[in-house]
Amino acid sequence: MLFAVTMDVEIPHDLDPEVREDLINREKSYCQDLQRKGTWVHIWRYAGQYANLSVFDVADHEELHRILWNLPLFPYLSIAVTPLAAHPSALDDTAGVAA
Amino acid sequence: MLFAVTMDVEIPHDLDPEVREDLINREKSYCQDLQRKGTWVHIWRYAGQYANLSVFDVADHEELHRILWNLPLFPYLSIAVTPLAAHPSALDDTAGVAA
Amino acid sequence: MLFAVTMDVEIPHDLDPEVREDLINREKSYCQDLQRKGTWVHIWRYAGQYANLSVFDVADHEELHRILWNLPLFPYLSIAVTPLAAHPSALDDTAGVAA
Amino acid sequence: MLFAVTMDVEIPHDLDPEVREDLINREKSYCQDLQRKGTWVHIWRYAGQYANLSVFDVADHEELHRILWNLPLFPYLSIAVTPLAAHPSALDDTAGVAA
Amino acid sequence: MLFAVTMDVEIPHDLDPEVREDLINREKSYCQDLQRKGTWVHIWRYAGQYANLSVFDVADHEELHRILWNLPLFPYLSIAVTPLAAHPSALDDTAGVAA
Amino acid sequence: MLFAVTMDVEIPHDLDPEVREDLINREKSYCQDLQRKGTWVHIWRYAGQYANLSVFDVADHEELHRILWNLPLFPYLSIAVTPLAAHPSALDDTAGVAA
Amino acid sequence: MLFAVTMDVEIPHDLDPEVREDLINREKSYCQDLQRKGTWVHIWRYAGQYANLSVFDVADHEELHRILWNLPLFPYLSIAVTPLAAHPSALDDTAGVAA
Amino acid sequence: MLFAVTMDVEIPHDLDPEVREDLINREKSYCQDLQRKGTWVHIWRYAGQYANLSVFDVADHEELHRILWNLPLFPYLSIAVTPLAAHPSALDDTAGVAA
Amino acid sequence: MLFAVTMDVEIPHDLDPEVREDLINREKSYCQDLQRKGTWVHIWRYAGQYANLSVFDVADHEELHRILWNLPLFPYLSIAVTPLAAHPSALDDTAGVAA
Amino acid sequence: MLFAVTMDVEIPHDLDPEVREDLINREKSYCQDLQRKGTWVHIWRYAGQYANLSVFDVADHEELHRILWNLPLFPYLSIAVTPLAAHPSALDDTAGVAA
Repeated sequence: MLFAVTMDVEIPHDLDPEVREDLINREKSYCQDLQRKGTWVHIWRYAGQYANLSVFDVADHEELHRILWNLPLFPYLSIAVTPLAAHPSALDDTAGVAA
Repeated sequence: MLFAVTMDVEIPHDLDPEVREDLINREKSYCQDLQRKGTWVHIWRYAGQYANLSVFDVADHEELHRILWNLPLFPYLSIAVTPLAAHPSALDDTAGVAA
Repeated sequence: MLFAVTMDVEIPHDLDPEVREDLINREKSYCQDLQRKGTWVHIWRYAGQYANLSVFDVADHEELHRILWNLPLFPYLSIAVTPLAAHPSALDDTAGVAA
Repeated sequence: MLFAVTMDVEIPHDLDPEVREDLINREKSYCQDLQRKGTWVHIWRYAGQYANLSVFDVADHEELHRILWNLPLFPYLSIAVTPLAAHPSALDDTAGVAA
Repeated sequence: MLFAVTMDVEIPHDLDPEVREDLINREKSYCQDLQRKGTWVHIWRYAGQYANLSVFDVADHEELHRILWNLPLFPYLSIAVTPLAAHPSALDDTAGVAA
Repeated sequence: MLFAVTMDVEIPHDLDPEVREDLINREKSYCQDLQRKGTWVHIWRYAGQYANLSVFDVADHEELHRILWNLPLFPYLSIAVTPLAAHPSALDDTAGVAA
Repeated sequence: MLFAVTMDVEIPHDLDPEVREDLINREKSYCQDLQRKGTWVHIWRYAGQYANLSVFDVADHEELHRILWNLPLFPYLSIAVTPLAAHPSALDDTAGVAA
Repeated sequence: MLFAVTMDVEIPHDLDPEVREDLINREKSYCQDLQRKGTWVHIWRYAGQYANLSVFDVADHEELHRILWNLPLFPYLSIAVTPLAAHPSALDDTAGVAA
Repeated sequence: MLFAVTMDVEIPHDLDPEVREDLINREKSYCQDLQRKGTWVHIWRYAGQYANLSVFDVADHEELHRILWNLPLFPYLSIAVTPLAAHPSALDDTAGVAA
Repeated sequence: MLFAVTMDVEIPHDLDPEVREDLINREKSYCQDLQRKGTWVHIWRYAGQYANLSVFDVADHEELHRILWNLPLFPYLSIAVTPLAAHPSALDDTAGVAA
């Protein structure tokens, strides 16, 4: 089940630089683990923004919520979630299986 | 070069049903041709909406504009375009090449 | 899987009154069939508005999209969809099973 | 008398962790007490958000205001309140009595 | 139980002038009947706007919805509803009883 | 001359509790003095919000501005001001004299 | 008593050209009469827009409403009204008397 | 060349009171000097707001920018700038020469 | 004197195709004449939109207004105007003279 | 490949003045280097705002993102990016090559 998720990052200017770096590193590992599992299907940077557009493939809303809630950067994110369905014009081999 | 594009469709209620059906059929062919060429990389339906989220892979802005401008449904679309860059957390084999 | 869905209705003033009445009757039957099936879990009127707040329990995004897309009033609706997850404070017997 | 209430939570990043945990625990107890009384009829988490959609069944506006005003997290909430009425399409046994 | 209600009126330019005048006359009678009953407690014109701010005193949401839904101008109104509670600074003889 | 005024209160979380309490007490006295003079005609709490809807009856804009500017909570208020005129449907004894 | 008023004009494309010209001529006369009386103190065109910023000097809200309501173009205007007070930095001979 | 300029003032609550008073005094002098020169043509207080509507008469955009940028309160202002042109309905002796 | 101007075009779907084509041709000529005169300094298409970003170099607001008001497509345009000043970081030979 | 980019600057009031001055100086050098390379094609100040409108000519989204991400003031900027295409009315020697 696919979801488009946008995340805008706003880390406070006065956050301790080491804490900040640690958070960003843990966010990256967390993200790549989920990519390897096939859950975090896509992640693109919005050019010129500290923000991304992602696509997730999850079993249900509980899984989606647990994943987003546990993002190391969660307290600094503005998140928008949009459920995606198959598009009737999509060819099977490109969009039908979410990739 | 990747772009996220959202399209909201609002076909006038009083459009001739045959014209409408013809438009939608031509839109579908147009879309699938571009999918086969690898230009229209993804298209998902926003669940419950007459709208889609698409990702395009084009050579430049001229190509993107020509593609969108010539959509059969273009006069009835509200389009938003966002340039995408590679995300530093993306693994090469999933997001690095746009798919 | 639960979704909160809001629907704002805007039927054109010049729609034929019989067509309008027929649409509304079919919408009601459609809605009640889905209530009986346990799919359309809740529907409330926003007081003073031609709009409702609904909760759907569906298997996936495809089912949700098919249901909303086929609403007789769909061409006249502005629809917003929000995925719901269980709340950690919810007691099992009230919100845990969606009702 | 039913109300849809949405609550967006924004706890300051620098709040003392113990104060924070205490607030959240008290919020949970407060919420569950009202669920047991049949006042806080539903509470769902917006997936991926620190926010909820709730339905309250209260005697009047004074009761609703007193309940929301006394939420332990009230100072950190953005709250929206919408009065709900019975929907003419609702079957008695699902939405007519608010549950 | 008090509600603040704002109504913005937008009558189509091409509505038949007699129909328009009839609607406005019926709206006025309807409004004055409810004032006499003590239900439509206040109505003020927003200066320079085809809009009003009203206060209603009703038994419940069903009554409020029925009143607004049956306004002769309802199809041409944008309505916003906000529930009002007693203010702790209000003196009994001015705001406590809604007037 | 009547004005509808809405006030949203946002007192900083870190304001000294005694200062806060003193401000709120002075706000209440200030408000009640103006109610007794017939200037602050109505004040209602928006249910579930730290906000109010008020109606003022003043001689001119200078008086309105002086009153609002000198509210003890003024630095923490978001204020919206809308001039009200008599509504042609208002009965003399309810809305014509502002109460 | 001064008010800033902005008016955005949107005349339907299909309005009869003679009706349109007549409306615009009557609007101009109406406006200039009020300028001569000292009521319509200023009117400026927003450069590049079919819109204006005006300042009115009226006795009360009833007069303001009557003036705006009777504008020949009223049905095609979006109007915003903001009450103005003397600014403490204004020199008497420029802003104190509204001109 | 005339510009409508709105300025919303938001001075941080924790600014040193002496600094604050000094800023406001310098702002006032700065404003009155420009009024005497005929550059700051009008300044009105939005009633009930810490905000003003001003009209400037400057030689070009560079002068306008230099004036606004050097306002003592500039760091605490939200500024909106709108270019004004002569209105075809304006009588020469009221609006044609900006005053 | 430079202005950034954005124009969103919305030509009614039912405009006569010949009228439409004539309007667009006249718009193009009008635009190119002003480019040759050095008045319409830049015009770019927003990729994927029926909209443009333009830069104008005019003597004053009257000239800007006259140019925009007389655009053949003016009745179908939503126009936003923003005055531009020299940027302190701009090198003389690129931005200082508007091109 | 051209992009319109707007940047709104909001430097925290409590930033150390030397840090602030250093940032602004580095931003200026950075900007001018890119102007000399022909990458930062235009930069204009929005008159009266701490904001600019810029046009960039880059090879791809990666280059655009790298440039904006590395702006010394990046943490204090709100950035909007819009891809530009050639406009069919643009004369070759003014807009075709981005300058």
